[in-house]
Amino acid sequence: MKKVCLVIGSGAGVGGNVAKRFAREGFHVYLCRRTDQDGLNKLINEIEADDGVASGSLLNVIDENSIEDIVNHIEKEIGPIEVAVYNIGAQIGNRDLKDTSYKAFEMGWRMATFGLFRLAQVLTPLMEERKSGTILVTSATSAVRGNKGQISHASAMAGRRMICQSLNAEFASKNIHIAHIIIDGAVDAPDTLGKMLGEENFQKLRETKGMENDGLLVPEKIAETYWHIAQQHRSSWTHEIDIRSFSDQAWWNT
Amino acid sequence: MKKVCLVIGSGAGVGGNVAKRFAREGFHVYLCRRTDQDGLNKLINEIEADDGVASGSLLNVIDENSIEDIVNHIEKEIGPIEVAVYNIGAQIGNRDLKDTSYKAFEMGWRMATFGLFRLAQVLTPLMEERKSGTILVTSATSAVRGNKGQISHASAMAGRRMICQSLNAEFASKNIHIAHIIIDGAVDAPDTLGKMLGEENFQKLRETKGMENDGLLVPEKIAETYWHIAQQHRSSWTHEIDIRSFSDQAWWNT
Amino acid sequence: MKKVCLVIGSGAGVGGNVAKRFAREGFHVYLCRRTDQDGLNKLINEIEADDGVASGSLLNVIDENSIEDIVNHIEKEIGPIEVAVYNIGAQIGNRDLKDTSYKAFEMGWRMATFGLFRLAQVLTPLMEERKSGTILVTSATSAVRGNKGQISHASAMAGRRMICQSLNAEFASKNIHIAHIIIDGAVDAPDTLGKMLGEENFQKLRETKGMENDGLLVPEKIAETYWHIAQQHRSSWTHEIDIRSFSDQAWWNT
Amino acid sequence: MKKVCLVIGSGAGVGGNVAKRFAREGFHVYLCRRTDQDGLNKLINEIEADDGVASGSLLNVIDENSIEDIVNHIEKEIGPIEVAVYNIGAQIGNRDLKDTSYKAFEMGWRMATFGLFRLAQVLTPLMEERKSGTILVTSATSAVRGNKGQISHASAMAGRRMICQSLNAEFASKNIHIAHIIIDGAVDAPDTLGKMLGEENFQKLRETKGMENDGLLVPEKIAETYWHIAQQHRSSWTHEIDIRSFSDQAWWNT
Repeated sequence: MKKVCLVIGSGAGVGGNVAKRFAREGFHVYLCRRTDQDGLNKLINEIEADDGVASGSLLNVIDENSIEDIVNHIEKEIGPIEVAVYNIGAQIGNRDLKDTSYKAFEMGWRMATFGLFRLAQVLTPLMEERKSGTILVTSATSAVRGNKGQISHASAMAGRRMICQSLNAEFASKNIHIAHIIIDGAVDAPDTLGKMLGEENFQKLRETKGMENDGLLVPEKIAETYWHIAQQHRSSWTHEIDIRSFSDQAWWNT
Repeated sequence: MKKVCLVIGSGAGVGGNVAKRFAREGFHVYLCRRTDQDGLNKLINEIEADDGVASGSLLNVIDENSIEDIVNHIEKEIGPIEVAVYNIGAQIGNRDLKDTSYKAFEMGWRMATFGLFRLAQVLTPLMEERKSGTILVTSATSAVRGNKGQISHASAMAGRRMICQSLNAEFASKNIHIAHIIIDGAVDAPDTLGKMLGEENFQKLRETKGMENDGLLVPEKIAETYWHIAQQHRSSWTHEIDIRSFSDQAWWNT
Repeated sequence: MKKVCLVIGSGAGVGGNVAKRFAREGFHVYLCRRTDQDGLNKLINEIEADDGVASGSLLNVIDENSIEDIVNHIEKEIGPIEVAVYNIGAQIGNRDLKDTSYKAFEMGWRMATFGLFRLAQVLTPLMEERKSGTILVTSATSAVRGNKGQISHASAMAGRRMICQSLNAEFASKNIHIAHIIIDGAVDAPDTLGKMLGEENFQKLRETKGMENDGLLVPEKIAETYWHIAQQHRSSWTHEIDIRSFSDQAWWNT
Repeated sequence: MKKVCLVIGSGAGVGGNVAKRFAREGFHVYLCRRTDQDGLNKLINEIEADDGVASGSLLNVIDENSIEDIVNHIEKEIGPIEVAVYNIGAQIGNRDLKDTSYKAFEMGWRMATFGLFRLAQVLTPLMEERKSGTILVTSATSAVRGNKGQISHASAMAGRRMICQSLNAEFASKNIHIAHIIIDGAVDAPDTLGKMLGEENFQKLRETKGMENDGLLVPEKIAETYWHIAQQHRSSWTHEIDIRSFSDQAWWNT
């Protein structure tokens, strides 16, 4: 059986590129995204055309048992999940408190926080039995500071960060490596940033801020760091790392 | 109409003592706690015996509309809520991941995080209209670092902290002061710590760590700092403060 | 003998106002500033006119033995220093790296960092013997994040913050309370901000940002929080607190 | 001319292993350490035996012009310094305040803080002209929290951290990448830890905590992460990262 890298949240941005990176190293990558079967198929095809092995399915993390079932399915039918990437965003744009509905706030928590907790619940016992495993968690500036309009996102992402710290405190010594990766800036990702901005604005942003001066984070470059962290020797593990474009200021300066 | 101080979570620890402190300054204090009508009555009686004005009701913050209804009731029947104290804890003791049920994790979020969000939703429009208001939020070490056994508590409290930061970013300039108060240690509180430890162990702890050397935080002393923060001039507001016993190490040293 | 409050760095801003606050509570306040004997005399006269007791002398903290000698002088001639306020700033305005001379960088460290270390060296043995004491340390945003143009200031202030944390870890349990007070904004202080901006610009800033909307921190209001921290019961001590104007964004948002 | 990697502080631990890693990638590595010409020669020989190119010299960073002269010498005689590694420690073991002399405190600052400032002063103009460069800064837990006995180390390392943040804010957009690398644990390094503990105790520690369970950070593994950071694409730079053994708790938990 081939070792598996499960990517929850694998569109054309960070998730998809991390999947490609791990596929190139011999992992069977299993891709999950909420919608867009065509996009999913396209990504699988690209990986296979590059001599990789990939499969996947649509998955809505907020559905009951969705994450749990897919983990059990993979472990039974494909192989042991050696690496899991939790790459579900919960950014809903800047919204004043009064425009942030109870439902949106709860949804943010279900996606950003509770989903990761559930993944850890179903996956860590398996990793503990195998005495090995890696969980890479994509996170955002909002995990470390609240801001105007970010009440839902920041609250959910900070919850995510504390899950990672609590998991490390419990599972690092059992040889399970959890990393909290703070992406501090806009990623050049058509499926998320692109949809939020609309095609025309996104293209304009890419041409000005992005291509010109690498002002958007390039997801295939971010993927290199994900791969590196997953390869770190256990004497020298990283728990938290930040990543941003050279042309941006760090969050504590902007 | 008298100005009101609403205390959500007012047992015999921090909440009750903050209530007494504000009552002594002329506030009508409105007390809410989840259970124990007798305890609630006792606290009201003590405040009245001290020439204060108090009323209250049992309130389960996780019930739909519970917080919203009580705020509207107070504003209509008693007076404007000038100060609200959100003092709901969500500590469930140290539990390994596998012993932290989905239900417990969600409950932690509903109490520690979502409840404060709902309070802000219903209260800030009223405060904004009055161009004045204070929200004092009790928090814990878990808001700033995860730990073994604290996955539910840390995740929920970090969410609480980011709510406070996001509220300040949106509402400080509208003259609404939100303070995130990190209580970094065990409070000498019979209703929470006492129940968690059992009467005998609690009494033993008080006699050794507590009375002997002030190693438990004394809630009536903490209340002085709550009062101070609520009185700060708006040119000089505190957003975050930590409080611990002189005989304890700070969380970053233990 | 009267108990003494020593204020190192007592111009017309935070230092002078903290001095007045403690004088009103019965302390003999001893005032030190680097230059301006007239300003020093004026402050002493104001305190005495308000029925307080004050004395003082010019003191350059970077001079060898300056701090050590003054502490010993006060302890011998006036009374035990119950409270010390270290209020020496080291802001030199925004300077690019190339415009920050070795001398300026070292000077920043001598004033902001080394001076506090020396004060602690000479004062803590006396406080330890008396089993009591408080050291209040004024600090700045730069203590918690670096920024363009702030390399000298940030480096020195972060060093100051770690001194405070290390002192608390060693001396809190000996009943010596050290507090690190982050003033996150511009203070309405003629001796520092005023001199940096020039009289005309300072007056303009006061009239627009300051008086109009309390956008400058008012030092006599800040002094209330210094007094409060010095009065906290030892079961409930604050190690770190931030203070900013209601109309400003917190440093993590700007 | 070959591109150069300058390693200031290159004993048999992190510095030496980072040097070897960069030599394997084709850099001319220039090694500096304070003492032990034999150790320096041995490292150069090892690198050359591995087909690398290395040279070096003894360097005491606290000596006037020492860093400045060596940088100018390398740039003139060997080649452009593409990467500089500042790997000077300043740990002096746990010392109470009263046992930390003024001289030791100042020495800590000269080594940990001022030396990096001087390196940046002499190197960044050259890198700015070349529109390219990387400065990797080894740091320690003490950079983010003070502790009993660590007043000198913590104060100096926190200053170091703020230098890094300030440099990034000024130079990242000029394509100069500065990374602050927090090594949160004991490194298996004979030249530093070994000398601090004595040979026998060090060997015992290696055999128990180290080899058995990778409880000491293995410097050649750490070097992989240094190399990775130096290779990050400029759209995806890391400013801060932590590294610790899987079997240790993070600093915020211990």
